[in-house]
Amino acid sequence: MINVTVWNEFRHEKSDENVKRIYPDGIHKCIADFLGKDKEINVRTATLDEPMHGLTDEVLDNTDVIIWWGHAFHHEVSDEIAAKVHQRVLRGMGFIALHSCHVAKPFIKLIGTSGALRWRTDDFERLWVVSPSHPIAEGLGDYVEIEDEEMYGEAYDIPTPDELVFISWFRGGEVFRSGCCWNRGRGKVFYFRPGHESNPTYHVPDIQKIITNAVKWAAPKQIIEKLDCPFIEISPEAARK
Amino acid sequence: MINVTVWNEFRHEKSDENVKRIYPDGIHKCIADFLGKDKEINVRTATLDEPMHGLTDEVLDNTDVIIWWGHAFHHEVSDEIAAKVHQRVLRGMGFIALHSCHVAKPFIKLIGTSGALRWRTDDFERLWVVSPSHPIAEGLGDYVEIEDEEMYGEAYDIPTPDELVFISWFRGGEVFRSGCCWNRGRGKVFYFRPGHESNPTYHVPDIQKIITNAVKWAAPKQIIEKLDCPFIEISPEAARK
Amino acid sequence: MINVTVWNEFRHEKSDENVKRIYPDGIHKCIADFLGKDKEINVRTATLDEPMHGLTDEVLDNTDVIIWWGHAFHHEVSDEIAAKVHQRVLRGMGFIALHSCHVAKPFIKLIGTSGALRWRTDDFERLWVVSPSHPIAEGLGDYVEIEDEEMYGEAYDIPTPDELVFISWFRGGEVFRSGCCWNRGRGKVFYFRPGHESNPTYHVPDIQKIITNAVKWAAPKQIIEKLDCPFIEISPEAARK
Amino acid sequence: MINVTVWNEFRHEKSDENVKRIYPDGIHKCIADFLGKDKEINVRTATLDEPMHGLTDEVLDNTDVIIWWGHAFHHEVSDEIAAKVHQRVLRGMGFIALHSCHVAKPFIKLIGTSGALRWRTDDFERLWVVSPSHPIAEGLGDYVEIEDEEMYGEAYDIPTPDELVFISWFRGGEVFRSGCCWNRGRGKVFYFRPGHESNPTYHVPDIQKIITNAVKWAAPKQIIEKLDCPFIEISPEAARK
Repeated sequence: MINVTVWNEFRHEKSDENVKRIYPDGIHKCIADFLGKDKEINVRTATLDEPMHGLTDEVLDNTDVIIWWGHAFHHEVSDEIAAKVHQRVLRGMGFIALHSCHVAKPFIKLIGTSGALRWRTDDFERLWVVSPSHPIAEGLGDYVEIEDEEMYGEAYDIPTPDELVFISWFRGGEVFRSGCCWNRGRGKVFYFRPGHESNPTYHVPDIQKIITNAVKWAAPKQIIEKLDCPFIEISPEAARK
Repeated sequence: MINVTVWNEFRHEKSDENVKRIYPDGIHKCIADFLGKDKEINVRTATLDEPMHGLTDEVLDNTDVIIWWGHAFHHEVSDEIAAKVHQRVLRGMGFIALHSCHVAKPFIKLIGTSGALRWRTDDFERLWVVSPSHPIAEGLGDYVEIEDEEMYGEAYDIPTPDELVFISWFRGGEVFRSGCCWNRGRGKVFYFRPGHESNPTYHVPDIQKIITNAVKWAAPKQIIEKLDCPFIEISPEAARK
Repeated sequence: MINVTVWNEFRHEKSDENVKRIYPDGIHKCIADFLGKDKEINVRTATLDEPMHGLTDEVLDNTDVIIWWGHAFHHEVSDEIAAKVHQRVLRGMGFIALHSCHVAKPFIKLIGTSGALRWRTDDFERLWVVSPSHPIAEGLGDYVEIEDEEMYGEAYDIPTPDELVFISWFRGGEVFRSGCCWNRGRGKVFYFRPGHESNPTYHVPDIQKIITNAVKWAAPKQIIEKLDCPFIEISPEAARK
Repeated sequence: MINVTVWNEFRHEKSDENVKRIYPDGIHKCIADFLGKDKEINVRTATLDEPMHGLTDEVLDNTDVIIWWGHAFHHEVSDEIAAKVHQRVLRGMGFIALHSCHVAKPFIKLIGTSGALRWRTDDFERLWVVSPSHPIAEGLGDYVEIEDEEMYGEAYDIPTPDELVFISWFRGGEVFRSGCCWNRGRGKVFYFRPGHESNPTYHVPDIQKIITNAVKWAAPKQIIEKLDCPFIEISPEAARK
């Protein structure tokens, strides 16, 4: 079983009627629902306004893959929790950053750059599969389409992805590296662009398939106890004799 | 001085009235003309129908960077010449593959994949700069536009580029990794998408700037004599004592 | 089930008494034997001196992962068979190149460089795991040791590996990137350094574990029919309306 | 001219007689002295115990490349200064991390991982050039040797370097990726392993050559004003017509 925690700001869904209509129980609940249908996945949720943002040590210690959705309140995430999430990824936990998390605290700590990009309001988006044999693209056709999505455009300030899975086309004239994989420490990181709160993107079957694939791709074999710098008293070579 | 050889099939320009109008002396001559204006560049040309395709040992031995334009007659390039070009790149020569050279013999030998892609007739193309501080993008704005170009679309079968400089947007709905850098041996390889023979693309100032930048980026400090597998009689470590 | 074909030159084992003692039925048989103990793996062998080097279309069409061992007779492998193997990797087949295959025809076609390196006779080798969470390193400690192996040293002329799993240390003073992964087309490629014919390396349990891990890592979900450049009559975008 | 700031903790040189003998005016002064002999380089220094660690806005605003040496007091570097250095690298400033800076605050922020490694006291080190045509290796032979250096060994917890220039061999039996390049934002980052305070490593001519080469490699064409996420009111495409 893969233990997944879906984390969400869960603010827009309470303050905005349109968002509430699309995600009545929150984006996290929508994502948890479709993931929960997979027999290999065991899912829970956590949100910004819970104590410790819902990410107690007990929760984190039992999370194999965390999915992160945030937008307008990244700065309210405590540095301490962001650091704990970051450290756990380095020890093996998978991290999936959705949409506006291009500037989320734990994501930025993992990639090392600013995550800057250009953006625009709703447009038609087509995500091209550029790495067709990648496990995250399994079961997809040549591309996936979304009728209306907030536009994110290049130049996107990220380190060169270890693997690039999707590039988006927007009708208005922009492109974007929409599905990016990085290895960080023992953990795997996936950034996936779509999912503005005012669009029903996480209800789209192909989007659900991609996120489910990403969870399985990011799931670790093992999460190690700690990362440190051991001192070696006697060299392994010397010890051989 | 950087010694550049511009290689061209030079067939369409003789057989097709429209192409002849755009490139009366051939694509190679057009490219050689704008490169020749740069004081650091010394340029010559070679074409398919010359003896040895114009690529005698004497010519190759005096080439720092080769630019390759081919389209319908890749199969007429001799395996021997393709192998010589390939070997010289591994020893340090820069290689710039233009447009339909996604399946040119020496290019395929360098990247190792098929170069397969999807394509379509003319469309509006916008090339986004995704790596703004890369030397090949120097002096450009956020993007470069071409009114009419043949469309190439993903999935493009290439190894992950060491550096990705441009991603193209086409009005019809496709995207393409249009400016790709790879290191191969001691040499640098750049694939640049635009330049169909029936479009006046190599007359566009920004396209000329990109190709000029690419020549300077690909120019080697040194071209080594040979690449071999030396046997070491006595280990360097043992020899120290 | 993963269908594996172990390919071997199978010449040294017939001409050299020492090699025959270590691998009485050939290196391919030794590798096939330990792989065959894994319930997920179905294994066959093929050798240079069989008709078509044992790699008929029927054999290749039923191979998910090919393991390649060659040394002194790379030039006797027909260009046609090498090209077929290369093409099948691009369509999804895994390729594992062992030891002297740094210059094997299908391997060189896949990576695009010369594979040049420096070498020396027997020495103590320690392979350090530099990517501890990589599936090919699963079940290993910090390093693997081999008492006697032919030395291969840097600079090794390869494209930057997509993933680097092992770096070797040799007592005599050299280092080497000994476990290198590349994606090529739909297929995965792994180069693994150890395995000189005069050393009993493929009898070492950790080496057997690494090769077994590599087979599972390289096994494709799917091998596609062909890689081509489809022409798109009407753009997908235009077709949408 | 390239404006270089050499930053140093400058503590060991004051508290330890042995270190003081090797670097009487501090490691920063030794590095500044050999860099200052290069006509393209304009050098200044800054140290931990100066106000703002010597890194006022005025100093940073006039720095093209910063060299960072720290060891036992990384935690005393203020988060604010570390963040400013990090941001400036993303805007174009080069960053060269020496030796124990594998865990320096600004370096960790740039790479995103822990920088964990294993270590041991003095040993003979040989740095192999694995990327002979890289500008940082210009003018070197096959390898560089250091009689005595602190040992750092794999597994080194870093993202896969964009370019790997050196791998170290230590007599005691370890290997290490000792020269690693990354692109981060508009800036270039180089980690270079050698340089323990109790060894005269920065007096070695080849080490001086490497650091000088690295400064020239990391020097930006341009440092941009800011990195942000611009909103685009009207799409460029819509605006065209």
